[in-house]
Amino acid sequence: MLAPPDLLIPTHLTAERADPSRSLAYADGAFLPLAEATVSMRDHGFMYADMTYDVLQVWRGGIFRLEDHLDRFFASLAGLRLDPGLSREEVRGVLRELVRRSGLDYALLYLCCTRGETPPGIRDPARARQRLLANITPLVLRGQPAEFRRGWHARIVGEVRRIPPDSVNPRWKNSHWGDLSRALWLARDAGYDTAILLGQDGNVAEGPGFNVVALTEEGLLSPAEGVLEGIACRTMFEIAARLGIPARYGTLSPEALQAAKEAFATMTSTGLFPITRIDGRPVGEGVAGPVTVALVNEYYRLKDAGWHITPAA
Amino acid sequence: MLAPPDLLIPTHLTAERADPSRSLAYADGAFLPLAEATVSMRDHGFMYADMTYDVLQVWRGGIFRLEDHLDRFFASLAGLRLDPGLSREEVRGVLRELVRRSGLDYALLYLCCTRGETPPGIRDPARARQRLLANITPLVLRGQPAEFRRGWHARIVGEVRRIPPDSVNPRWKNSHWGDLSRALWLARDAGYDTAILLGQDGNVAEGPGFNVVALTEEGLLSPAEGVLEGIACRTMFEIAARLGIPARYGTLSPEALQAAKEAFATMTSTGLFPITRIDGRPVGEGVAGPVTVALVNEYYRLKDAGWHITPAA
Repeated sequence: MLAPPDLLIPTHLTAERADPSRSLAYADGAFLPLAEATVSMRDHGFMYADMTYDVLQVWRGGIFRLEDHLDRFFASLAGLRLDPGLSREEVRGVLRELVRRSGLDYALLYLCCTRGETPPGIRDPARARQRLLANITPLVLRGQPAEFRRGWHARIVGEVRRIPPDSVNPRWKNSHWGDLSRALWLARDAGYDTAILLGQDGNVAEGPGFNVVALTEEGLLSPAEGVLEGIACRTMFEIAARLGIPARYGTLSPEALQAAKEAFATMTSTGLFPITRIDGRPVGEGVAGPVTVALVNEYYRLKDAGWHITPAA
Repeated sequence: MLAPPDLLIPTHLTAERADPSRSLAYADGAFLPLAEATVSMRDHGFMYADMTYDVLQVWRGGIFRLEDHLDRFFASLAGLRLDPGLSREEVRGVLRELVRRSGLDYALLYLCCTRGETPPGIRDPARARQRLLANITPLVLRGQPAEFRRGWHARIVGEVRRIPPDSVNPRWKNSHWGDLSRALWLARDAGYDTAILLGQDGNVAEGPGFNVVALTEEGLLSPAEGVLEGIACRTMFEIAARLGIPARYGTLSPEALQAAKEAFATMTSTGLFPITRIDGRPVGEGVAGPVTVALVNEYYRLKDAGWHITPAA
């Protein structure tokens, strides 16, 4: 279906058109088919979730916010005491080479460092050989126009709380998704598309793979504490500034979110996606609102013009 | 070195004597070398810690508390909505076959079910193909006599709290170890052997891979809430009952632990291991105490007599 004239979302990045055979991986110095990129079942990244990762978007053959993602990845490495033995320039080179070799112009790059294996009988992580792995897969844009207008119907799942920062620091991007996955199952059981989790303090934290943004009377508001510092959220805040819309990080109560004029999720894969119903009640008009549409249109206009894009070639 | 006459810990199960070449794995219906047992870097068990596992001990060619571990494994599967498509009898068969094929009489069995992969662009766990993997490796007994007498010097790491049960249910055995790993690094930085974590309520929870047990004036006490229901801890409580020592689950404050007459960690690999110093101060006499030694001696006596052991053949 055609996009309504005021919604500039590309319509060619669908699951049907994606060519998974162009996927490609990198592991330990070599480029290889994605199916061959594996970790041992004794890797601590698998056994103990002792790993970090990041996800980047490839747009028109370039990498979106490459240096921002590398900043976060290297901060996560340092925080989690991981060191794959590659310099920032080398990691950058791996990512650019994946784009070049795959020939994919629209893609997701997944980058991770895992603790690796220790000899049997030894659990000491200092004895493990750490590994850097990465892959590239075609970008499938969740936000196709009809889907985008409808948006997500979300449930605020009060019975599962986001893992608190004094247990696992969410700013070091990690695979501790048990709370997010559990909340998603419960939300789906109740007929919702996705879940929004609260922190131990009862305020909104984040959802499975996304930050939450509400449009209140004072402008955009996204939770400041206990969440990943989402780069897509930062992007939307920068775009809001260009459009003259105030935006800030702060405390977002579930009641304030339910009473928002508009709400959306931000994530690397799709930039933003509207949240149009919460706990069965419409957010604003119950469809993607005018600020949400303005942000996403400006997002695509800017990216198509090369904003924050590092060419891979 | 020889064990003192009153400490019945076998001395032949050392890292030096273990033969890792007898390790063996199982994956998706086949037995294979451990090095070939891998998961995709796109497996949700790796990307999102969406998996469960259990660890069993092989003793004198039989499996210790096989049915108790299967009870827990199948409860974890159900809780986490994992189903590898094998019956309990089939899983039991895989474990026994690993013992038989490896020829290992003293070993650890690692059993896991992981969510598996979804197609690129799709994160829906309902679309993943789940996998059962397992492996067997030689048992290396941490508790060699001299090591055992010295025990662990533990730090109560107050600045990292155990992931609370309303975020990730600890009774469904899972790989969410970020808090445990972080606490272990911090304890080691400060010169300690291991870490003990507190829950959000400030009471003792557990350590990296072990339950904590204190000997107080009223008998043995281990935390009841926010911890894995350790089978080794249950074993020690059963042995305590045989020896006429009261034992219960309850609330254990850090102060009560520091003031304990004896303290120890319980885990499948070694049964129990003494904690002889906490935060720089001795627990009791600062060496493995008489109750700890009585428990571990009875543990080996009973296991050697076939207590709770299911023959693999």
